[in-house]
Amino acid sequence: MRPPPRRLVIDTDPGVDDALAILLALASPEVEVVGLTTVFGNASVELTTRNARAVLAAAGRTDVPVATGAAAPLAGAYAGPVPQVHGADGLGDGGLGFPQEPALASTVAAAEFLWRSAQGHPGELTILALGPLTNLALALRLHPDLPRHVAGVVIMGGNALVPGNANPCAEANMLGDPEAGDVVLGAPWPVTMVGLDVTHKAVLPGAAIARVTAPDRPANRLLAAALPHYRNFFERTNGIDGIYLHDPSAVAYVVAPHLFTTAGWPVRVETQGMSRGKTWPCLGDTDDPAPAAWQGRPTVRVAVGVEGDQVAALVEDRLSA
Amino acid sequence: MRPPPRRLVIDTDPGVDDALAILLALASPEVEVVGLTTVFGNASVELTTRNARAVLAAAGRTDVPVATGAAAPLAGAYAGPVPQVHGADGLGDGGLGFPQEPALASTVAAAEFLWRSAQGHPGELTILALGPLTNLALALRLHPDLPRHVAGVVIMGGNALVPGNANPCAEANMLGDPEAGDVVLGAPWPVTMVGLDVTHKAVLPGAAIARVTAPDRPANRLLAAALPHYRNFFERTNGIDGIYLHDPSAVAYVVAPHLFTTAGWPVRVETQGMSRGKTWPCLGDTDDPAPAAWQGRPTVRVAVGVEGDQVAALVEDRLSA
Repeated sequence: MRPPPRRLVIDTDPGVDDALAILLALASPEVEVVGLTTVFGNASVELTTRNARAVLAAAGRTDVPVATGAAAPLAGAYAGPVPQVHGADGLGDGGLGFPQEPALASTVAAAEFLWRSAQGHPGELTILALGPLTNLALALRLHPDLPRHVAGVVIMGGNALVPGNANPCAEANMLGDPEAGDVVLGAPWPVTMVGLDVTHKAVLPGAAIARVTAPDRPANRLLAAALPHYRNFFERTNGIDGIYLHDPSAVAYVVAPHLFTTAGWPVRVETQGMSRGKTWPCLGDTDDPAPAAWQGRPTVRVAVGVEGDQVAALVEDRLSA
Repeated sequence: MRPPPRRLVIDTDPGVDDALAILLALASPEVEVVGLTTVFGNASVELTTRNARAVLAAAGRTDVPVATGAAAPLAGAYAGPVPQVHGADGLGDGGLGFPQEPALASTVAAAEFLWRSAQGHPGELTILALGPLTNLALALRLHPDLPRHVAGVVIMGGNALVPGNANPCAEANMLGDPEAGDVVLGAPWPVTMVGLDVTHKAVLPGAAIARVTAPDRPANRLLAAALPHYRNFFERTNGIDGIYLHDPSAVAYVVAPHLFTTAGWPVRVETQGMSRGKTWPCLGDTDDPAPAAWQGRPTVRVAVGVEGDQVAALVEDRLSA
């Protein structure tokens, strides 16, 4: 017998790879998506909320509620979109033509939606965070009890033992709100960090992109419109034929954790200097084996290895089926 | 015909592996050590200067002058010794019994000694830095022309693509004076960074330590007194049977560069937050391919690969011969 599907709220800033990730989750029997919460990041929260609804509409899942979340990080201002990566519209400059209605708009803000979803499914909810961690941090500040009510948290974000992708130091989601990241990785819940350590090893190759974008269905047409710009960015910047599966890898971790290896370390997020946004695991093998900044911090499960080809195959199979 | 030996000033904070490195350089026909300059770091500059003289005396090379250098970093205060690594005396709690006299004391401070050495051997001098980079930064501030007069700079320090050793973020020498590190890696001279990316792949195993400490000669007796404490630290902290060849690897790079592979990147040193002392290379493959903090910085040659066994063999052969 198949185990019951895991209840999932996806906190997201679509975002081309967010769209892929949401569609992968909706196509995965291992999970039941009970809602989306949106956040600034790859584009403004107005655009990411619009895009989240468009993705749900394309998937024929307008029954899934969408709660609008933070427009800016805990501290400071939103640094702005990254049109060279995700397009000016957040969907590879191809998403604006897709309808966003009718999708259910939640009457509560994202942080409150997370709390209510946890209350509605006591001990069963997994929060999957694919953008800056502002909504999760706000939920923790609003409801410090939240960790006791959720099954776990999986985030796409951070770089433990590898360089950054937003800049040489930091991964883009963590850089989006380092203060929130440090709150979320310091809360007493089971949190897994699916970061660049693995997502830079999971590439959806050009041939698979062709298969995923071929079917004449709304969801696949949306991907066909969104992916070329995103793919061009990686070809130009990283010299790969295909796209890094950043956000889809975090979904893959939820539905197929056996494709990943993890390590357990306390993790801090730098908020200062040029290293702002860098996630620092403490491996315990240094001159000072227990540095003060990591003392009292919970153990974060950090994905350090991945069967990248199998993650790509999962994405290809489920989105082209 | 063998090429003429390279003129070398070694800036050093002995330090157990500094002692190994100095003895390796003195035993290497590829280089001629024209002087030592000392700096705070593994111990106070009073102790490191004493230890530098003791190493020279043990090697029978009291003709090599020693210039005392900085007691504290450019900004802030000396953070203190690391007795758990190098012993309270800087030589594994075994060095104080060795005579330090007679060794030539320079009448000028280390920074000035570096300048005069460069003037004395125009275009021929290599500066090999094995401690915090304070003396080199001071020399650059005293004599901005210095880069035009030296052949090159090789430093043991930094961690480009790997974690730190002083703490999760930073390598010990860079953490000793991050402001100076950022000056030295930003100056217009050919500088090679031999950091943890390679030194954590170069281990002198227990059997080799036995060979190096066996001969009944003063230099080997000094190593026999200094190495056990140092070796115990790595066994306890890193679970290895042997010692990392941090400083000796930088000497090996000078005398046998073919054992290393390098990459060319601009490198900044973080001076803020918990990441203070972290060296950040800019690989040019990020969302912003030319981040402002790295613009206008020279290309640093960064050692990223090493034939670690051959570096260990070099150390073993030359110090046990």
